[in-house]
Amino acid sequence: MEYRIENDSIGSKEVPKDAYYGVQSLRGYENFRISGLSLEESFIKSLALVKKACAITNYEVNELDENLKNAIVKACDDILEGKYIDQFILDPIQGGAGTSTNMNMNEVLSNIANEYLGYEKGKHYPIHPNDHVNMGQSTNDVIPTAGLINCYMLLKDCLEELEKFKDSLLNKGIEFEDVVKMGRTEMQDAVPMSLGSEFNSYGKAVNRDIKRLKERLEELLVVNLGGTAIGTGMNANPEYIKKVCDNLNKLSGLNITQAEDLIDSTQNADIIASLSSDLKVCAINLSKIAGDLILMSSGPRTGFGEIILPSKQNGSSIMPGKVNPVMPELLKQISFQIIGNDTTVTLATQSGQLELNAFYPIILLNVFQSIRILRNGIETVRKNCIEGIEANRERCKSLVENSIGIVTAFAPSLGYEKSAYIAKKALKLNRNIIEVIKEEVDLKEEEIKETLNIDKMIRRIS
Amino acid sequence: MEYRIENDSIGSKEVPKDAYYGVQSLRGYENFRISGLSLEESFIKSLALVKKACAITNYEVNELDENLKNAIVKACDDILEGKYIDQFILDPIQGGAGTSTNMNMNEVLSNIANEYLGYEKGKHYPIHPNDHVNMGQSTNDVIPTAGLINCYMLLKDCLEELEKFKDSLLNKGIEFEDVVKMGRTEMQDAVPMSLGSEFNSYGKAVNRDIKRLKERLEELLVVNLGGTAIGTGMNANPEYIKKVCDNLNKLSGLNITQAEDLIDSTQNADIIASLSSDLKVCAINLSKIAGDLILMSSGPRTGFGEIILPSKQNGSSIMPGKVNPVMPELLKQISFQIIGNDTTVTLATQSGQLELNAFYPIILLNVFQSIRILRNGIETVRKNCIEGIEANRERCKSLVENSIGIVTAFAPSLGYEKSAYIAKKALKLNRNIIEVIKEEVDLKEEEIKETLNIDKMIRRIS
Amino acid sequence: MEYRIENDSIGSKEVPKDAYYGVQSLRGYENFRISGLSLEESFIKSLALVKKACAITNYEVNELDENLKNAIVKACDDILEGKYIDQFILDPIQGGAGTSTNMNMNEVLSNIANEYLGYEKGKHYPIHPNDHVNMGQSTNDVIPTAGLINCYMLLKDCLEELEKFKDSLLNKGIEFEDVVKMGRTEMQDAVPMSLGSEFNSYGKAVNRDIKRLKERLEELLVVNLGGTAIGTGMNANPEYIKKVCDNLNKLSGLNITQAEDLIDSTQNADIIASLSSDLKVCAINLSKIAGDLILMSSGPRTGFGEIILPSKQNGSSIMPGKVNPVMPELLKQISFQIIGNDTTVTLATQSGQLELNAFYPIILLNVFQSIRILRNGIETVRKNCIEGIEANRERCKSLVENSIGIVTAFAPSLGYEKSAYIAKKALKLNRNIIEVIKEEVDLKEEEIKETLNIDKMIRRIS
Amino acid sequence: MEYRIENDSIGSKEVPKDAYYGVQSLRGYENFRISGLSLEESFIKSLALVKKACAITNYEVNELDENLKNAIVKACDDILEGKYIDQFILDPIQGGAGTSTNMNMNEVLSNIANEYLGYEKGKHYPIHPNDHVNMGQSTNDVIPTAGLINCYMLLKDCLEELEKFKDSLLNKGIEFEDVVKMGRTEMQDAVPMSLGSEFNSYGKAVNRDIKRLKERLEELLVVNLGGTAIGTGMNANPEYIKKVCDNLNKLSGLNITQAEDLIDSTQNADIIASLSSDLKVCAINLSKIAGDLILMSSGPRTGFGEIILPSKQNGSSIMPGKVNPVMPELLKQISFQIIGNDTTVTLATQSGQLELNAFYPIILLNVFQSIRILRNGIETVRKNCIEGIEANRERCKSLVENSIGIVTAFAPSLGYEKSAYIAKKALKLNRNIIEVIKEEVDLKEEEIKETLNIDKMIRRIS
Repeated sequence: MEYRIENDSIGSKEVPKDAYYGVQSLRGYENFRISGLSLEESFIKSLALVKKACAITNYEVNELDENLKNAIVKACDDILEGKYIDQFILDPIQGGAGTSTNMNMNEVLSNIANEYLGYEKGKHYPIHPNDHVNMGQSTNDVIPTAGLINCYMLLKDCLEELEKFKDSLLNKGIEFEDVVKMGRTEMQDAVPMSLGSEFNSYGKAVNRDIKRLKERLEELLVVNLGGTAIGTGMNANPEYIKKVCDNLNKLSGLNITQAEDLIDSTQNADIIASLSSDLKVCAINLSKIAGDLILMSSGPRTGFGEIILPSKQNGSSIMPGKVNPVMPELLKQISFQIIGNDTTVTLATQSGQLELNAFYPIILLNVFQSIRILRNGIETVRKNCIEGIEANRERCKSLVENSIGIVTAFAPSLGYEKSAYIAKKALKLNRNIIEVIKEEVDLKEEEIKETLNIDKMIRRIS
Repeated sequence: MEYRIENDSIGSKEVPKDAYYGVQSLRGYENFRISGLSLEESFIKSLALVKKACAITNYEVNELDENLKNAIVKACDDILEGKYIDQFILDPIQGGAGTSTNMNMNEVLSNIANEYLGYEKGKHYPIHPNDHVNMGQSTNDVIPTAGLINCYMLLKDCLEELEKFKDSLLNKGIEFEDVVKMGRTEMQDAVPMSLGSEFNSYGKAVNRDIKRLKERLEELLVVNLGGTAIGTGMNANPEYIKKVCDNLNKLSGLNITQAEDLIDSTQNADIIASLSSDLKVCAINLSKIAGDLILMSSGPRTGFGEIILPSKQNGSSIMPGKVNPVMPELLKQISFQIIGNDTTVTLATQSGQLELNAFYPIILLNVFQSIRILRNGIETVRKNCIEGIEANRERCKSLVENSIGIVTAFAPSLGYEKSAYIAKKALKLNRNIIEVIKEEVDLKEEEIKETLNIDKMIRRIS
Repeated sequence: MEYRIENDSIGSKEVPKDAYYGVQSLRGYENFRISGLSLEESFIKSLALVKKACAITNYEVNELDENLKNAIVKACDDILEGKYIDQFILDPIQGGAGTSTNMNMNEVLSNIANEYLGYEKGKHYPIHPNDHVNMGQSTNDVIPTAGLINCYMLLKDCLEELEKFKDSLLNKGIEFEDVVKMGRTEMQDAVPMSLGSEFNSYGKAVNRDIKRLKERLEELLVVNLGGTAIGTGMNANPEYIKKVCDNLNKLSGLNITQAEDLIDSTQNADIIASLSSDLKVCAINLSKIAGDLILMSSGPRTGFGEIILPSKQNGSSIMPGKVNPVMPELLKQISFQIIGNDTTVTLATQSGQLELNAFYPIILLNVFQSIRILRNGIETVRKNCIEGIEANRERCKSLVENSIGIVTAFAPSLGYEKSAYIAKKALKLNRNIIEVIKEEVDLKEEEIKETLNIDKMIRRIS
Repeated sequence: MEYRIENDSIGSKEVPKDAYYGVQSLRGYENFRISGLSLEESFIKSLALVKKACAITNYEVNELDENLKNAIVKACDDILEGKYIDQFILDPIQGGAGTSTNMNMNEVLSNIANEYLGYEKGKHYPIHPNDHVNMGQSTNDVIPTAGLINCYMLLKDCLEELEKFKDSLLNKGIEFEDVVKMGRTEMQDAVPMSLGSEFNSYGKAVNRDIKRLKERLEELLVVNLGGTAIGTGMNANPEYIKKVCDNLNKLSGLNITQAEDLIDSTQNADIIASLSSDLKVCAINLSKIAGDLILMSSGPRTGFGEIILPSKQNGSSIMPGKVNPVMPELLKQISFQIIGNDTTVTLATQSGQLELNAFYPIILLNVFQSIRILRNGIETVRKNCIEGIEANRERCKSLVENSIGIVTAFAPSLGYEKSAYIAKKALKLNRNIIEVIKEEVDLKEEEIKETLNIDKMIRRIS
């Protein structure tokens, strides 16, 4: 490979001749070969969008020449179109609060732009990565800003999938409204209910998650752009500070606002931690739902067998005909990952020191992943599982009829103690509860029937 | 001790003759001797309040005789006044979703009430713990309801303390507005700022926590009371179901509403998990703030020494004169406990199965503790630390003057690379940065002064 | 109440006249009113034991007069006998790395000892809490040392219960060896096994926990006593440093050794974090076992119903005759608490700074609680659940006979694809698998019987 | 693209004509498009190794024809040489306990092997993916076995790096032995120590991690291979079960043993959870060390400034000359990730149900990542940071000389209270402590010098 020599404060270094990244990116690459992962393309684009808004604003406040601005903007547009993504060579797990990522962007943009202006890569001329591309900026404002924007975009998309997921659950709630099944508390037979109510509950729970995550959505568009190094706006033109978020909105079509206190929003990452927490609460609900689907579909012969999940693949390499609840299992695992990611985010966020949280890279990596796997997970689970779930109506019915829990309906009339005696007797003698009731109590057939009116028992209150 | 004999479905058992609790409480006590802890008094009272509302409502819908109702209500009032608290003998860590706690309440109330009516304890007559005190109820609706009400009361009180805590931080922000100090990012000298901005940031972060927790507050008053065993309202009079929350509001002065879907709200505990999560986010901010206080007060001679925390106690048993940052250390530990408690709540909530989350006892124990230690912690930290913090103005000033980071102010005019060269030279030769600037650059004294205008550097943007 | 006036570096303060604690304890008490909890009695005694060893050693190396030593030793003995426990007034959640707790002990001991010598409480004469009781010591060595000793004692006791718990599981393994049941993977019918193998597995898993926890046991007896403030032994007589652990062993009968590097063992708390982690792994196994017990005992009519747990209490306040798996539920909740406590310990341990981990109070509180609730939990679960579990042999047998999973036995002879076809057919037509095999394959009755030899299928390999 | 049609129990499906994977892999791929990640190459190779040992063993016990065996072995060797890695198309986050991954391997191997035998891909003839490649196996034994082997290999490599890391810390301990610095407890000036002792402590802590992880190493080679579906060895030739681990050892050169109880080792994943926990404890120590490096290198002018970390890259895009502690920051973030991953592993492991833990995919993904990022992290931190750390001897010395903490040395002779008085006076008047001592106490110059003998103060006890 051919190389060019580039210099920075640390010294000089060979950089591949064709590379648009430069010496600082390369140092970051060599220092941080940790996870084998790459920066997310959508995050790179969010950062390019921020850079574009900064260049335009610096031009508008007469800090940046028009031709330099135009070249930088053109370079940003290239990246926004998906070009040069391979020039972002950094591991997302990196020290330095994102400085390497920011410099990778500054170097790539300056090299593209300088070529547009007819100059060579690697010379930092006429456009310098720090003095021009990074003008009026600091890693400490552009990285959190781009991070929040990327969270917003990912979350917005995820929320659309969550809505569909919720709807598919509520639809099942309607579809199964007339399926009577046994309710179970603490995994012991309780009283009857509708299978539709079960799915309706799941939908309602997911709906609360949607509500909570939407509350987070707004907060994600409150950014610290303009604050530069520590939120005082040091070295940024005061007019630039005032205008840069407006320009970002014009470019993005979003409704971004500058944080009321940039020092606060530079040093505290609780907005992302709060997002991660609410993703975790959503994961809690999804894990519970997934667990229920595994329970209700257990069998086919020796389990509950109340519902049938669509067969999506052979369940076993050794046991012929076995079909496993792979989709709920997937959902549970995604939930576990999101919960673990939240632990990482929690540790990193509370470890911020003074004017900056230096651990943005790990915070962003985890929260981006959580949103993405949540979104992808619920899409496939909805399509390949929820929408195709069938009720085993016969099975549901026979379980209710054979159950003992329905004795509960007699407690108001017979009292708790007498009812308990009847239940125990039926269980001990392995007999049908209604037979035992008839033996033990002087009630007419009709009274018994009236008391055991399943429709009344399973009514959903609302 | 003298005993009476009581019976339940399991068999007969000796109960201390004077006890207001009964056989079921005693079984629970003996089965669960785990933590040595007791049920919280405020939770016991919340449960008594629920019981009172239920009795009144059952009376109003003609399910319960007036004299029985009156006796039960009187017994509830006793507990609400703090009597009989020692009759609640259960460990908060218990199996059974709170059934033991509910039965402890049912037994104590029935025994008190029966005595009021002139009958003996332990006979379940004329008032039966299940048939009358627990009429139209299930553990599965009264325990979550009382749990949420208790969370609400604790949180409300805690939020008042959080407001005071926030205000004390913001006040320090004003008090220290004119104290110039060095800002640090990644613990390296960055650019100057006001010490007031630091404290102002802390106040702003806590304010976001207040906002988030207030969002939770509303949700806590949406209860599943009336749903009985699984949310279908089985065995409860339909009119009772409609009226019971209104009666609870009349008694409590709160604005409780019945959940739209009682099956959902009986099986999903995400509202408490969400509260726990937001307490965790608050803990994240408090831990960060506490860490900063420890850093800025480090010394007195070999640390940062920028602020002086009030001396609240001797710091060391061996090192005379040592004063330690015990209050921020306390705050950090409280934060760690809240974060760990949230892990417990997360595990327990996602482990719910079908119609019930059987793990309410551990969920409630942890979330009650989190709110209480948070409230108590911030009160003592505010009074014994925040309010008495003093700035070491001399020290702050001299650190800024000796720093190198102020070279940043020259980057826009000299360029990043030249400025970096100057910084490195000053550091290497251990010289004052302004001297080196004068040597290296052809700038007039006034231009240098203008560039180094500290007031401009430290402005807070808002 | 009557008061005496005491002074310390902070100023003077009223102390209740009868109190054995002094001004420093009282400041700690007032500063830290957080959790409502008290210090553990066993921890207080461990600390008194350390103090006793220190006094004796200081006497032996001629730092402490014999009569002072004797008085201090007598005071320590009082505490070891359980006297004066109410004089330890501190909240376990406290700032200051345990200095308040240590000073509480120093003050109580000096006041008791001074009374023995005929002097008044509160005068620090002739025995001074710092100069004599704390001689050659620092909070930073005595608190971690007493903490580790207490962990050791608690863990030792807990391990005895774990052994009994494991044995009860292995015994059930033997008892149920001849009970054939359906094995399930991913909650779907798999192939047959013995119910005994199930319980045997649980015993084996717990045995690994015992092994891991025993590895920790040794490490707990490596202490930093003698290191004083930061591990350099500052202000301790060099001979004292050499001898103090021997004296501690003589008094305790334990095999304590002084850490090879006292600076390391003063600043790093990983030994306790490692204990907490292994408790967490044990909790993982217990939670899994508890989950299985809940599954296998689900029913009685609409669940798996393979085992019957002893009825320990009424399961429901509303549903007569309901018996819930309260013991496994208890075990799960204890596991969740231990896992959450480990998160707290993790955060606190990694937050240590330089020469000390200031967060010992929260670390010790959590690890003490984890061991205690684990110990108490497995004792009650063993006695009230495991030992009384019965197999529902009929149910187990009929589930196997009706299952489809046994078709797996034909896969080697018929091939995976043909076997899968047969399984699907049986399931679809709701028919017995053996009938379908007979239809589809040309096999003699005997060949089929031979292939379906259950005894061969369920063999346990070892 | 051209396609072939393949069938499985679910139906028929187009598979790219050139693909070595088959219909089942493709279903898994389509069902699980979650994370964008790929299966680890080293894990794929571990699984191929297992498959090779199985084929050889089945041949030896006359279950598999020699020519089929040879072809399968040849195919395994291809994969072990790194060929066909792109044919493993699955997302590591997948439902089904690893069945998709196992079937991907079975299909790829059968297709390669069938080509070697002169047949076409996709026909399952003469070698069938289930009947021959998977002979005597189940996902439930081969996946955990390959997972453990991969953990072992990764951990072994990681331990070598940990040894180097520890040595580099201990070497710094020797190099800095004569550098006197101020010790700090609770971030307040305590007593002097050697900078070497600080680094020595870090090395000792890491050494304990090495010891703990080595204990895990052995356990990782206890596998459940031979147990097939649930550990009963169903469908495997009994002789095969006995021999297969020996063959695996011959091929791998490892010392693998078959678990004593295969049912236990199939259903319990605590061995991996325990590994994850010990990685977490290591992360705790590393995070603490990293935090200390950040503290001690804080500055250059307004922090502690006791050590100088090597400059590895420009620290800031805006602040010229700024060099940040990127390596310790990296280490902290890696630690946070490992701790979060352990939460995921904890949740997944305790969620196992009955005969299997269905959540192996997420468990393995997280533990593989934890080991890998730990290994890569400590390598770069050692090379780019630890080995190049320099002491700022002048600074360390002057901090000690200006400190007040050295008054502690006078406590044994002057008493705690007098010494505290002197310390407070020096601090209040901003004077040198030795001057104040001279004023306050009647001590000769030599006595003072003797008491303040720094060499004695900083001795390390061992």
